[in-house]
Amino acid sequence: MSEIAVIVLAAGQGTRMKSDLHKVLHPIAGRPMLLHLLASAAALAPARTVIVAGARREQIEAAVAGTDVRVAIQAEQLGTGHAVLQTASALDGFSGDILILYGDVPLVTTATMQAMLDRLREGDHPVAVVLGFRPPNAGVYGRIVSDDGRTIRKMVEYKDASDDERALNLCNSGLMAVRSDDLFALLARVGSDNAAGEYYLPDIVMLARGDGGISAVIETAAEEVAGVNSRAELAVVEADWQSKRRTAAMAGGATLIAPETVWFAWDTAIGRDVVIEPNVVFGPGVNVADGVTIRAFCHIEGATIASGAEVGPYARLRPGAVLGEKSKIGNFVEVKKSTLGRGAKVNHLSYIGDAEIGAGANIGAGTITCNYDGFFKSKTVIGAGAFIGSNSALVAPVTIGAGAIVGAGSVITRDVADDALALARGVQDTKPGWAAKFRAVMTAKKAAK
Amino acid sequence: MSEIAVIVLAAGQGTRMKSDLHKVLHPIAGRPMLLHLLASAAALAPARTVIVAGARREQIEAAVAGTDVRVAIQAEQLGTGHAVLQTASALDGFSGDILILYGDVPLVTTATMQAMLDRLREGDHPVAVVLGFRPPNAGVYGRIVSDDGRTIRKMVEYKDASDDERALNLCNSGLMAVRSDDLFALLARVGSDNAAGEYYLPDIVMLARGDGGISAVIETAAEEVAGVNSRAELAVVEADWQSKRRTAAMAGGATLIAPETVWFAWDTAIGRDVVIEPNVVFGPGVNVADGVTIRAFCHIEGATIASGAEVGPYARLRPGAVLGEKSKIGNFVEVKKSTLGRGAKVNHLSYIGDAEIGAGANIGAGTITCNYDGFFKSKTVIGAGAFIGSNSALVAPVTIGAGAIVGAGSVITRDVADDALALARGVQDTKPGWAAKFRAVMTAKKAAK
Amino acid sequence: MSEIAVIVLAAGQGTRMKSDLHKVLHPIAGRPMLLHLLASAAALAPARTVIVAGARREQIEAAVAGTDVRVAIQAEQLGTGHAVLQTASALDGFSGDILILYGDVPLVTTATMQAMLDRLREGDHPVAVVLGFRPPNAGVYGRIVSDDGRTIRKMVEYKDASDDERALNLCNSGLMAVRSDDLFALLARVGSDNAAGEYYLPDIVMLARGDGGISAVIETAAEEVAGVNSRAELAVVEADWQSKRRTAAMAGGATLIAPETVWFAWDTAIGRDVVIEPNVVFGPGVNVADGVTIRAFCHIEGATIASGAEVGPYARLRPGAVLGEKSKIGNFVEVKKSTLGRGAKVNHLSYIGDAEIGAGANIGAGTITCNYDGFFKSKTVIGAGAFIGSNSALVAPVTIGAGAIVGAGSVITRDVADDALALARGVQDTKPGWAAKFRAVMTAKKAAK
Repeated sequence: MSEIAVIVLAAGQGTRMKSDLHKVLHPIAGRPMLLHLLASAAALAPARTVIVAGARREQIEAAVAGTDVRVAIQAEQLGTGHAVLQTASALDGFSGDILILYGDVPLVTTATMQAMLDRLREGDHPVAVVLGFRPPNAGVYGRIVSDDGRTIRKMVEYKDASDDERALNLCNSGLMAVRSDDLFALLARVGSDNAAGEYYLPDIVMLARGDGGISAVIETAAEEVAGVNSRAELAVVEADWQSKRRTAAMAGGATLIAPETVWFAWDTAIGRDVVIEPNVVFGPGVNVADGVTIRAFCHIEGATIASGAEVGPYARLRPGAVLGEKSKIGNFVEVKKSTLGRGAKVNHLSYIGDAEIGAGANIGAGTITCNYDGFFKSKTVIGAGAFIGSNSALVAPVTIGAGAIVGAGSVITRDVADDALALARGVQDTKPGWAAKFRAVMTAKKAAK
Repeated sequence: MSEIAVIVLAAGQGTRMKSDLHKVLHPIAGRPMLLHLLASAAALAPARTVIVAGARREQIEAAVAGTDVRVAIQAEQLGTGHAVLQTASALDGFSGDILILYGDVPLVTTATMQAMLDRLREGDHPVAVVLGFRPPNAGVYGRIVSDDGRTIRKMVEYKDASDDERALNLCNSGLMAVRSDDLFALLARVGSDNAAGEYYLPDIVMLARGDGGISAVIETAAEEVAGVNSRAELAVVEADWQSKRRTAAMAGGATLIAPETVWFAWDTAIGRDVVIEPNVVFGPGVNVADGVTIRAFCHIEGATIASGAEVGPYARLRPGAVLGEKSKIGNFVEVKKSTLGRGAKVNHLSYIGDAEIGAGANIGAGTITCNYDGFFKSKTVIGAGAFIGSNSALVAPVTIGAGAIVGAGSVITRDVADDALALARGVQDTKPGWAAKFRAVMTAKKAAK
Repeated sequence: MSEIAVIVLAAGQGTRMKSDLHKVLHPIAGRPMLLHLLASAAALAPARTVIVAGARREQIEAAVAGTDVRVAIQAEQLGTGHAVLQTASALDGFSGDILILYGDVPLVTTATMQAMLDRLREGDHPVAVVLGFRPPNAGVYGRIVSDDGRTIRKMVEYKDASDDERALNLCNSGLMAVRSDDLFALLARVGSDNAAGEYYLPDIVMLARGDGGISAVIETAAEEVAGVNSRAELAVVEADWQSKRRTAAMAGGATLIAPETVWFAWDTAIGRDVVIEPNVVFGPGVNVADGVTIRAFCHIEGATIASGAEVGPYARLRPGAVLGEKSKIGNFVEVKKSTLGRGAKVNHLSYIGDAEIGAGANIGAGTITCNYDGFFKSKTVIGAGAFIGSNSALVAPVTIGAGAIVGAGSVITRDVADDALALARGVQDTKPGWAAKFRAVMTAKKAAK
């Protein structure tokens, strides 16, 4: 089978985004659009991948740094045909099938890409395969005229289309598969004799036809080729992605009480018999095992949650949070880079950072691990079965032994041995009647104001 | 009037739920589907109620333990007719009208059930009353052929239906009312000579017709007979329930700024001139009096809130929270099994558990009631007008007298008398210039790394 | 150009709201409906503005206290014509164009009001200009019969309309512009000879026609003239307002990951390249500069957030919160009437009230500014670069110097000098083996229960 190269066009200005961030780097489900597309393309194992960038190319370069993806530069905006031509040197020596994608059409699947390549290799030897779609409202999209639904008689821009052509609803997504030899030979012949003075990639279809070649069209769902040119369109694509992901989570055996209020990240893994209450936000890197309950208003990123654990409401799990089986994180609790053993509990109003908490330990309300001195982070180790009284501060580095007890309100600065009790708090002093006098004085003061 | 018996079919495998929990026990609005249905049926005061269970029948038995609902077993899945036959011994000696319901069609109302029974008792003496509905898309539902909209000429499974019959949109919900004598006599004659080899309950309609009897159809809204076979369908039924409940709350005089983000439980009671901001989740057992304001992001279960109280944002009220008139629970505050007197305030970042707080008391930010020693829960009592300074820990059992003041940052372990001041904190010690030296040392260390 | 007077009818009972609050004072986007309407009208610079109030007029009077808006009283509910007549004395001496609005039709724009007045001043000299609209379902609205789409042949109440008239979908919003002389002269001739025995304002159109005058109709979108008669309608108008505002925020360069879960207030100002995660609620008085990130579950009122700041998740900013550039407010943090300098951080579980925090200061988890003694609020000043250890209580009035360090768990009651270290906590005391013995005793006790 011939080798594959992937070209991703990403040189558009993205003006309507009104952003300093390159359009194709705006995230969907927590991952930049471009990386969604590159991941889908990578599954084809392409020999080369080239992004055509223009303005803000340094942002693109940073996004693919450390990969073998190349970045070609289109200095001037002279149209899609011109953009593809800029890949000539990056594709020098490559011979095979080329897939042309768009950085702002991010959710095209590997299956669709493969279908385009498969079609290119069919017996009728199409010169180009165009990905078509039928939107609910075809609007000003370019139309594809096909008599048999398989090959293309004509591609026409909306503004050049006749009324009959405009009445067609098979539209051109812009995505295309072409053999490398054909591509560059045809592009060399594309002119810019049109209103915009641009070199249009789709023109190769009509040029090939003039040579007696055929081009093919395959169709996909309009949603899959939805483009992102504004923040509103970004929100639409995000909503569509989320909707599909929620459906998949439910089909996999998770209860989403209000599915429309659960936001997944691109890589969220959710088990069976997981219950998710309304309003839960997942960031990247989360793995939720079977039988976990996630209550309302949780915010979870980079966390691993073992089976039977209970989280929330109002739990915030940050990267590196690892919750053991049947452990419990309650309300207004933040966990960062910390491990909880089986059955350990942090139920209320706590900050747990850079900590190891043993199995069955119980961390009282208002406990803070003081993991930062302004310069370095240090570790707190709490043994199995330990009991940390409420409102305690554990000043790291510090180790609380297994089975140890820390009295409520303590500031623990030195290690506590296994099974020991540690107290570090003031002595209670009471002044009888003081409050009554204070009240009298203050009431008078207030009245005097 | 004849007595009533209710049969609930709940022997399906529920495979598509992908759950270890029996399908009919998945909750809607915080209450298992089956219990919604049983509650609606109970309003008819049936002489007997029998659930037909199969796999996981022990879960069903546990769910109705302590009630007079009986559970009959259908060991093999041989169809709805066979399922109903399994109730024969539980209904032994019963003579009257039988209502056949489905555990996974949970939101049928008492009024509809009554309408079915009423129709059964009309002068034309139908043998069976079938509950029909007209879905937007009739799909593969069994069709009901009726010439007059009142009596049934034919019931036909979709796969056996002619094109004309498929064009009908009156569908069979499966629910039925039949007199007990007719039911068992007819069921004995139902065969399993069909593709699935099953005994179908609806076959009794055609059998009765063969005997010269009539069967009746009454109609209800498609939503009411929505079945739950997957988590996605569960979410749809939940959404429908919530939508109706929100509309009712608004009609009753509550403002829901964003109704679609307020989730009620099956038994939530909401007063007049209650304002609910976006994103509030109610669990079971909540009673909200008139004039209460519930701000955004609250999570409320088992709580009673008196008139004029203000709750949230970010308040979590757990079972046993009882808020007095004009009391106030603020942000990041958790209240469990505690009573607040009139005008008492807990405004910020506190955990209040197993406490009694007197009228007008003010609990400072960061206050924790230390109610658990790892073995037993103990009580905190705070008198009227007391003032608890911020970041205090009150180690229960402990009583703070009326009008008493606790200094900020105190750990209170002994009772405080009325009007007394209690302080229990460290003495402030200051080391001039120490921070500057520390910074120099640490900066050097960091640079050296 | 002739002067303008604005009449706002607000004498309806509002029974369906089931509220003690006057219907027109129920808020949309955090501002009473009436004030939305008055603000739009004020942009026309009217010479006089008169509200016609009935029941609960004192609430209306309070809402416009301190402005030059007058309140006329309609003691009895005798129809819209009668209501307008009650403005006669408040408009005594006024001669010019009168715009008649409805307090429960709150979102009519200044542009539409202006268009009504412009039409009144056109060369065909209409006596009245009626604002029409075409709802998706015309229902029981009064119909406008117009042959040319510009002038009115007939206005007819739904109940009096012929079938042909009911088939029209041009409906009467009730809003009207009329010259003052015409208005009161015609109103004097309006009778109450109808089913309700009321004096109807629209009758002036037919009276004028009888005199040989013409009346004009101009049209607007149905949404703009949506009326609020119930809480459900209030929610619909709120949702429509929010939807438009979200679209505008995205068009202006803000990313709303889930736009349907962001609630703006009427005056929220949002910059460019602002990212707003799901579930954020804005109250009035918020200004968000460019490049700010607001994470999920934030609640923000009366706050000013400088560029590059990061807020949330779960941050609650209350009035007077002023966040400097690149400052950071993290989870479960409440900030009230406090200023944060550039780059200052309050990352976790803190209450910051009446404080000034210098640039680059770091406030540890669980820090509480104790700003209230039960009588007066006092101020906490924290210098630039200071480091407040976790779980500290700062008892105001108190000043922590620049570069100073407060040890974790301290209760600071006296000022700390620049670059000093302050500690105020108990001494740690450990009892080896105590926890093991305690556990043995308690386990036995528990078993004995």
